[in-house]
Amino acid sequence: MIDIERLKLVIETKNTFAVVSHTSPDGDSMGSILSFYNFLIEKGKRVDVFVEGQVPRKYLYLNGANEIKNVDLAQESYDCLIVLDCGDLDRLGECMPLTEKCDLIINIDHHITNTRFGNINIVDSNASSVGEMLYDIYLQLGHNISKNIAECLYTSIVSDTGGFKFSNTTSKTMNIVSKLLEKDIDFTSIYYRLFDQKTLNGIKLTSLVVSTLRTYLNGKVAIMNLTKEMLELSGATEDEAGELVNIARDIENVEVGVLIKEIDKNVYKISLRSKDYVDVKDIALKYGGGGHVKAAGCTIKDKTIEQIETILLKDIEKSLGEVI
Amino acid sequence: MIDIERLKLVIETKNTFAVVSHTSPDGDSMGSILSFYNFLIEKGKRVDVFVEGQVPRKYLYLNGANEIKNVDLAQESYDCLIVLDCGDLDRLGECMPLTEKCDLIINIDHHITNTRFGNINIVDSNASSVGEMLYDIYLQLGHNISKNIAECLYTSIVSDTGGFKFSNTTSKTMNIVSKLLEKDIDFTSIYYRLFDQKTLNGIKLTSLVVSTLRTYLNGKVAIMNLTKEMLELSGATEDEAGELVNIARDIENVEVGVLIKEIDKNVYKISLRSKDYVDVKDIALKYGGGGHVKAAGCTIKDKTIEQIETILLKDIEKSLGEVI
Ligand SMILES: [Mn+2]
Ligand SMILES: [Mn+2]
Repeated sequence: MIDIERLKLVIETKNTFAVVSHTSPDGDSMGSILSFYNFLIEKGKRVDVFVEGQVPRKYLYLNGANEIKNVDLAQESYDCLIVLDCGDLDRLGECMPLTEKCDLIINIDHHITNTRFGNINIVDSNASSVGEMLYDIYLQLGHNISKNIAECLYTSIVSDTGGFKFSNTTSKTMNIVSKLLEKDIDFTSIYYRLFDQKTLNGIKLTSLVVSTLRTYLNGKVAIMNLTKEMLELSGATEDEAGELVNIARDIENVEVGVLIKEIDKNVYKISLRSKDYVDVKDIALKYGGGGHVKAAGCTIKDKTIEQIETILLKDIEKSLGEVI
Repeated sequence: MIDIERLKLVIETKNTFAVVSHTSPDGDSMGSILSFYNFLIEKGKRVDVFVEGQVPRKYLYLNGANEIKNVDLAQESYDCLIVLDCGDLDRLGECMPLTEKCDLIINIDHHITNTRFGNINIVDSNASSVGEMLYDIYLQLGHNISKNIAECLYTSIVSDTGGFKFSNTTSKTMNIVSKLLEKDIDFTSIYYRLFDQKTLNGIKLTSLVVSTLRTYLNGKVAIMNLTKEMLELSGATEDEAGELVNIARDIENVEVGVLIKEIDKNVYKISLRSKDYVDVKDIALKYGGGGHVKAAGCTIKDKTIEQIETILLKDIEKSLGEVI
């Protein structure tokens, strides 16, 4: 029996479900787990949805967000655990005990590294997001997409595609979004909450960080600092300002954007982003860090910002090669 | 005969075409006229495309952009003039003489105010963009969408929908984008050029303007200044910084965002943006300006920034009503 048929049987025959995603849930996590919540509620099932820690405030508009629990409020047992957007079980963090409370684990994911940890595994690394996969899955299970589910799936897809701009956005992705918009969802308001809304303190922090912007190597490298003093002055937490290092990378002609972030006295976290051809993972690895070709990071201790800048510029100059 | 059939006959029987859009062309203008250029070239026709002034640098990636002419290089006559994304002929600006050089004018537009100035008028105010309309039109004319045309139409649609976030984005819009992505266009690079790429000077100007940000009336109003000194210090032109006033409006809990821009000694241009319920056009009208409910502007003379701020805050306080 193929996995979707086995899943159909599980949904039809089981009654109590726990639904969970990874720690520090992102938009795809939140949209996926709450779409599954709405799906199961509409099917008349008993469902508990779990996240580690607090539900990020910006997802509270999703139907069911107020029902989300921490793992200490879980029942003794559930018929089935649905794990969404998780490459492996370690990513459940504090929610790990749920795996002991359920006889059956369903794993639905789009990470290429997925370890097939479930009793049923539906994994598609070509999907932009788990939300995109779930659109097809609900239809295959014979369930109509409600407005509540459509809002969740839109949230998943728009989040994991960065507002339909990342290269994981496909013709199929846009076709599914087209169907979701037929459900008359308030997508302009969702988009605003996810991408455009900033806190006053977040804007102040951004402004302080950008005021340190300087460029080197013919304008191919842009560097900014984020100090603990700036966090205090602005009153913002770092995530209120969004992906600050992207501001440096996105400048015309810049190939590598760098953010030097003060973590502690003489301890700096370095974020590196490249635009087209420099492999920043190579540079991060040299200092015990890691990441991807175009997005990587590392931590450097016992050096000043000026010293860090000097050594990074040497590494980046090598990577830029003949181009500059 | 319906308009699309008449258009089909024109395309089949005529041989020389001039194509034009409005002054200060935006992404929809550029995408539309260059899609029509590519369509006609693929049909084996003679085409000249015109804009007033220079082609904005960020659209030079579109096939045909380097062929665009100013009106003084027009031929003596053309069989047909194609006018795209223009509500009325006045918006042709310096390109107006083209209307005298052609026997036949084709008007394809999505402005609700369109004056039906053409011999053939295809107007759809429900379309997000002229690019969206042209997708259907080329198919109805029996022409396959080439990769070149797809890049132009994507540019039109993504521009006029603000990256698929404005409320003019419909299920149909996304369905057409889905078809365009099938043509394997480099949409991530187009998106970056249109939305994310900033100049170094533009970033500096933004930072200077944001450093003046202050809020009033319980955080419902956010005001920023843009002075001539900031333009000099940053070396940026104003459009390099994008829609600065949106930064103020987009802050959490802010209802009205204001940018006070120094035009000349004691002359200030005021941009007003509201989020949900305040009618900023009402306020702008009071000072001889105008606009829309959520986006308006006016010019105020012989007052200091502080005085302007005081009078605007009184007006805005009234408009906020009981809410604060
Ligand atoms: Mn995901
Ligand atoms: Mn338009």
